[in-house]
Amino acid sequence: MFAEKNLTMLTDFYEITMANGYLELGMQDEIAYFDMFFRKVPDGGGFAIMAGVEQVIEYLKSLKFEEEDIEYLRGRKFFSEAFLDYLKNFKFTCDVWAVPEGTPIYPHEPIITVRGPIMQAQFVESMILLIVNHQSLIATKANRIVRAAKGRPIMEFGTRRAHGFSAAMLGARAAYIGGCCGTACTIADIDHGIPALGTMAHSWVQMFPTEYEAFRKYAEIYPENCTLLVDTYNVLKSGVPAAIKVFKELDPPSKAIRIDSGDITYLTKNARKMLDEAGLTDCKITISNSLDEYIIRDVLHEGAQVDSFGVGERLITAKSQPVFGGVYKLAAIEIDGEIIPKIKISENIEKITNPGFKTLYRLYDKTTGKALADVMTLDGEVIPEEDGYEIFDPNAVWKRKTLENFRVKNLRVQLFDKGECVYESPSIEEIKAYCAEQIETLWDEMLRFENPQTYYVDLSQNLYDLKQKLLSANHAE
Amino acid sequence: MFAEKNLTMLTDFYEITMANGYLELGMQDEIAYFDMFFRKVPDGGGFAIMAGVEQVIEYLKSLKFEEEDIEYLRGRKFFSEAFLDYLKNFKFTCDVWAVPEGTPIYPHEPIITVRGPIMQAQFVESMILLIVNHQSLIATKANRIVRAAKGRPIMEFGTRRAHGFSAAMLGARAAYIGGCCGTACTIADIDHGIPALGTMAHSWVQMFPTEYEAFRKYAEIYPENCTLLVDTYNVLKSGVPAAIKVFKELDPPSKAIRIDSGDITYLTKNARKMLDEAGLTDCKITISNSLDEYIIRDVLHEGAQVDSFGVGERLITAKSQPVFGGVYKLAAIEIDGEIIPKIKISENIEKITNPGFKTLYRLYDKTTGKALADVMTLDGEVIPEEDGYEIFDPNAVWKRKTLENFRVKNLRVQLFDKGECVYESPSIEEIKAYCAEQIETLWDEMLRFENPQTYYVDLSQNLYDLKQKLLSANHAE
Repeated sequence: MFAEKNLTMLTDFYEITMANGYLELGMQDEIAYFDMFFRKVPDGGGFAIMAGVEQVIEYLKSLKFEEEDIEYLRGRKFFSEAFLDYLKNFKFTCDVWAVPEGTPIYPHEPIITVRGPIMQAQFVESMILLIVNHQSLIATKANRIVRAAKGRPIMEFGTRRAHGFSAAMLGARAAYIGGCCGTACTIADIDHGIPALGTMAHSWVQMFPTEYEAFRKYAEIYPENCTLLVDTYNVLKSGVPAAIKVFKELDPPSKAIRIDSGDITYLTKNARKMLDEAGLTDCKITISNSLDEYIIRDVLHEGAQVDSFGVGERLITAKSQPVFGGVYKLAAIEIDGEIIPKIKISENIEKITNPGFKTLYRLYDKTTGKALADVMTLDGEVIPEEDGYEIFDPNAVWKRKTLENFRVKNLRVQLFDKGECVYESPSIEEIKAYCAEQIETLWDEMLRFENPQTYYVDLSQNLYDLKQKLLSANHAE
Repeated sequence: MFAEKNLTMLTDFYEITMANGYLELGMQDEIAYFDMFFRKVPDGGGFAIMAGVEQVIEYLKSLKFEEEDIEYLRGRKFFSEAFLDYLKNFKFTCDVWAVPEGTPIYPHEPIITVRGPIMQAQFVESMILLIVNHQSLIATKANRIVRAAKGRPIMEFGTRRAHGFSAAMLGARAAYIGGCCGTACTIADIDHGIPALGTMAHSWVQMFPTEYEAFRKYAEIYPENCTLLVDTYNVLKSGVPAAIKVFKELDPPSKAIRIDSGDITYLTKNARKMLDEAGLTDCKITISNSLDEYIIRDVLHEGAQVDSFGVGERLITAKSQPVFGGVYKLAAIEIDGEIIPKIKISENIEKITNPGFKTLYRLYDKTTGKALADVMTLDGEVIPEEDGYEIFDPNAVWKRKTLENFRVKNLRVQLFDKGECVYESPSIEEIKAYCAEQIETLWDEMLRFENPQTYYVDLSQNLYDLKQKLLSANHAE
């Protein structure tokens, strides 16, 4: 658990049985294209936020089968010596494209594409999904919570309820990308530069004869980080009065109280009044207690007097919807250099894949800067930035719209070129700023927590025609 | 992410501010007792399952502040040099007790107690909670799913939807403790001995000109691990017929089909019929597609023909209730060697803590072996194994029951004695077997998914009286 961890073997066992199978059949170098995409925005929201690309890169760079991994596989008796030799000399040689972290993303979009020898392109499925599903889930949830707070800072407080170590660390990272201002998780600061902060638990208060003494001692030591937890005994009768006394006596440059239980609206309104009457209008009020976007929206609507929020378990586990259902599906193969598109059929129309090697464009209004639509095309297709480009709903082709005055952005970047990393991850601050800026390009109607406006994610005519052709061919069989 | 990871700094920042504060005030060696307990069984179930103790031990053994951690803290400017020196020479000297892994546990029970210098006993809060909350959550959920399957094996398939790396690895471990038979997560086998298995994805089938060819090639390579995924195109029209053809031609010693989409009851009934009519009564049917205990119960009730289940996202994220709300609260301090019990008051009666240094006993009926009740006592109290011991409900003291013919088990073991580990974790197989055996001691009425019988978790008269005294004293103030 605390040892140097090579995570190459963090993979579903079937990736290994398939890889060995491809080698056995001499298919190992057949070129395949896999797309990662998701089918539904969590919580019925209008969009998700891409996160985890930096860790995907780190993973792909560090792929290496250790001697002990080979030994383990040999012991399983399913695998040929030729395969174990192959793993010993494994070198990642795929091309990889991805939507950069912090970008709003939509169902069915190829947010990652891996092209390369089938053995490799298949093998990396489990970890790519694991990383991007987790961080996109948390970034998306964090952004909802941040939006509910309408400018008030949100601290990520969930370490103790996270699903394991990396859920705490990388969850803090994803929450920061989504708009949180910091975390309680100290190691996330050391490793990822997410500002960590915290002050006291109830036990601190209990360790002193009186609340006043606990607060006074704390304020003497930490005048610059002086948030006093006022709900150990009784918020309004003892906690707030004791805090007021200490703030008046010592006048620390940082003054705040934190309330971690009880009725937020009632307590904060009254605490605000008491603080103001004591002349402590500069004392902030922070709240933490099983919060999420719905509770924050409601208490602010009720007039709760809150300056910032600490959000724990419901953010770090994305409690209302803890699964980000990204999948990784075969989109094409190459035969003699020619791309042969593949489609996965399903009774459920939602589950039918978009075939082929694709490019993903986002079209922005030149005047307002707002995002108008995303369009998937076949690789090589270009959308001219000329008035009159027509988009249509691939599920209702009579719904058509002609776009004018727009600019076109290729939404994906190349991460790896024949196994060489050709992308440098932006800093966490750049990613966070990019995310905030991209959220600004969305219409307000898409920011609703429920029943948002559906964003246009369309197919180019060529891609649409290809898909129809494959569907018809399959149906004819 | 893939580097040697010392997780000492995986802690809420406030643990560090408090620790520095205690040192500043000369309180660092005051002895404190902290209890970890939880307040509610997830999903409204009758009990939870303890898990994560082995990782808690590993964590406590490996506590060490690295030079870079000290540098980071120095850079934060909140901390004294004396404190940073203290951390440099940090040595864990606490006593720790815990309920062993695999044990059914109940709300308000001290499942872990840490006794030692306040600086240390407080510091380890975040990680103890993180580890035990996560693994107990997954073990509890896994056990529900396993019970729903009524003896049919459950494979843990959730790696790709886990909340990060350790959620996948340790989630597989916890699921195994809870009763799963294995995992798809290969590294969990290497690191924790959880049997890993898997066969093919839809992409394998798509890589061949026909489903038959994909199956035939696979069966030739893996006759001993031959589960064919039959839902890439059409389960009953193409998948099952192709599987039957291959099984008849090659007669591999292992024969199974997996269905990953569609109506489970309808498809398995018809697939079973087709297999049986082809003489393949030994061919197993396995199912995987967003399953949980409710769906498994329902499809079995409907007569679905399933031999085993693969359960992914809803198990590895505990989707229906992804938060295990364990907390870590001050229960006592020592002054001049005398234990001074502490209580945390709350308007919410559920949130009032049980004060003092406690022992946790479980009473079993000698004849049936069934668990009758748990009783918390003050440390040193012994429950005599004599007829006539009276237990009572601490929230309704008129509800009393006299026990006869029972044996008493001290439910907790000591993990650390003055910082020395004095406990050897059982093997994962022993833990899993112990869990299954302990579940057998529960009455059927407690195994319901909803509205189970509430198990008795009582206080000894001494502990009850102490709690009342502290509550009255607080109220008088």
